[in-house]
Amino acid sequence: MAEQTSPERATPERIIIDTDPGVDDSMAILLALASPEVQVEGLTIVFGNSDNVRMLARNACVVLELAQRPEIPVAVGAANPLVRPYHGRGASVHGANGLGDIPVPEPSKQPVEQPAAQFIVEQCRAHPGQITLVTIGPLTNIALALRLEPELPRLARRLVMMGGAVTVPGNVNPVAEANVHNDPEAARLVFHAGWPITMAGLDVTTRVRMDDPYLESLRDLGNRAGRFIYDITRFYIRAYRERGHPNMAVHDSSALVSIIRPELFQSKPVTVDVETVGELTRGQTIGDWRGQYGRPPQTELLLDVDAKAFRALYRERIATLP
Amino acid sequence: MAEQTSPERATPERIIIDTDPGVDDSMAILLALASPEVQVEGLTIVFGNSDNVRMLARNACVVLELAQRPEIPVAVGAANPLVRPYHGRGASVHGANGLGDIPVPEPSKQPVEQPAAQFIVEQCRAHPGQITLVTIGPLTNIALALRLEPELPRLARRLVMMGGAVTVPGNVNPVAEANVHNDPEAARLVFHAGWPITMAGLDVTTRVRMDDPYLESLRDLGNRAGRFIYDITRFYIRAYRERGHPNMAVHDSSALVSIIRPELFQSKPVTVDVETVGELTRGQTIGDWRGQYGRPPQTELLLDVDAKAFRALYRERIATLP
Repeated sequence: MAEQTSPERATPERIIIDTDPGVDDSMAILLALASPEVQVEGLTIVFGNSDNVRMLARNACVVLELAQRPEIPVAVGAANPLVRPYHGRGASVHGANGLGDIPVPEPSKQPVEQPAAQFIVEQCRAHPGQITLVTIGPLTNIALALRLEPELPRLARRLVMMGGAVTVPGNVNPVAEANVHNDPEAARLVFHAGWPITMAGLDVTTRVRMDDPYLESLRDLGNRAGRFIYDITRFYIRAYRERGHPNMAVHDSSALVSIIRPELFQSKPVTVDVETVGELTRGQTIGDWRGQYGRPPQTELLLDVDAKAFRALYRERIATLP
Repeated sequence: MAEQTSPERATPERIIIDTDPGVDDSMAILLALASPEVQVEGLTIVFGNSDNVRMLARNACVVLELAQRPEIPVAVGAANPLVRPYHGRGASVHGANGLGDIPVPEPSKQPVEQPAAQFIVEQCRAHPGQITLVTIGPLTNIALALRLEPELPRLARRLVMMGGAVTVPGNVNPVAEANVHNDPEAARLVFHAGWPITMAGLDVTTRVRMDDPYLESLRDLGNRAGRFIYDITRFYIRAYRERGHPNMAVHDSSALVSIIRPELFQSKPVTVDVETVGELTRGQTIGDWRGQYGRPPQTELLLDVDAKAFRALYRERIATLP
């Protein structure tokens, strides 16, 4: 029988979060900063919820300063998809400033000079086999890093992705989820790179909902982080309400919780591929459940989660922040 | 309360079966010929299980003669998809002669001279609002008929299709079913034509299985039809067995049973569209469950069926044939 290790004693998993903050991105970053199971080595910024990556990087700096973690580097990345033009509509969900249009102070913290893809490559080279790439935006930075360093799939530990929709409808159209739809060519490279992937797609992320009473309970934690989450989610939850949902899905944090508390999830291994040229299906993530592609499964697809335990964990962790 | 009508008294639904016989096509045709709820106005032949449409038409004639219904016309149709070349692999499931490679007598019955598409148009013009098109092969003949007669969607009563896979994996690849995959452009025209469609895709057809003891019970009915079904399914069920299934799915008959006994099915209305240009998704049928295309549902998608009642009905009806 394996010896029990307490979470406090276990070595934290080193992660780089590739992100386009973003309301639920910021929520996920705060969760990571509050969780001893992970050690955040850096935030890399990608277009997605906006194509103003300088603004998105500023948001990342704001979140790090709020959590009093200004030492964590932020690297600015791709402002456009690999191949095709950006056509995102993130502002309708995240607000024009990416943080629900609340007034945001100018941070004193500045991004590093390296581009995000180079930062990712250097970190993975410096700590071979140790860094987990957590992607909660389009996969463009990762695709660029794969092209800069073909050994990246061996140098990284694994990739944990919020993106795609295999068993449920998409949120951009009936088959495509926004992060993958924003750069299908990049996503396809990532799924073909040969590393182990954990995928938190809409399959699982739409199963965790937060409603206003829950978000009020975060506001009332008495710290800045809880208040900030409440404030930035006002715009976001209104966008959900206008689409007929009484609460919001917690997309990006799901990828983090799958690292922090994997036992809360149900999942299945499956080969996933991405359609890049379809007229109706560009950006679709396809699950090969019957092995028809003849390739072994590279993806652990998250399919269900204990949403109640998820929400309890989230609040418990946010309560530990400044 | 609606007055009860006995099946014997109700007016039968006039149907044209568009078919590529085909083992399970032949089983479906025999079911139709044995069922007072439908009146078979003709069989129209399309490539699919083979591209030798003369041979497929001969098979249709063999089945009609076996059932002593030589007066039903057979019209030969498209030997190729609308736009792209044929790449079918029907012979691996249906045998080189389309009937499981059993010896087939040369029928005395011959097809009519009209091409299938013209036959369909003429029948629908002659009986406006009365003819149901039952498609159990690729949709090419129907697409051609739509181009010959733009009013066809008003002239026909409805279309009942075996084809596609909305909520389950495909049988050609992870997303596409063979009938739609054989001519996606034609299928797309059919789904955009503006008529009511009942769709028996793999969603429901894979839920009805026939195993050897069941097929032996058909053989032992003591008539020619039961013996014929047993004989032609030897090759077909062997193909299933080689793919790891102990029994065969009953695809084409499902479309017929949905007309004969609609109460055996569960279904939902949904807008369906067809991808025609995807690299991985060409021939995929997409269900727009959340109304993201902004078009009202044109398709009643069959999702489940009382398989036991289905099999009992099938045997009961086959027993009435010569």
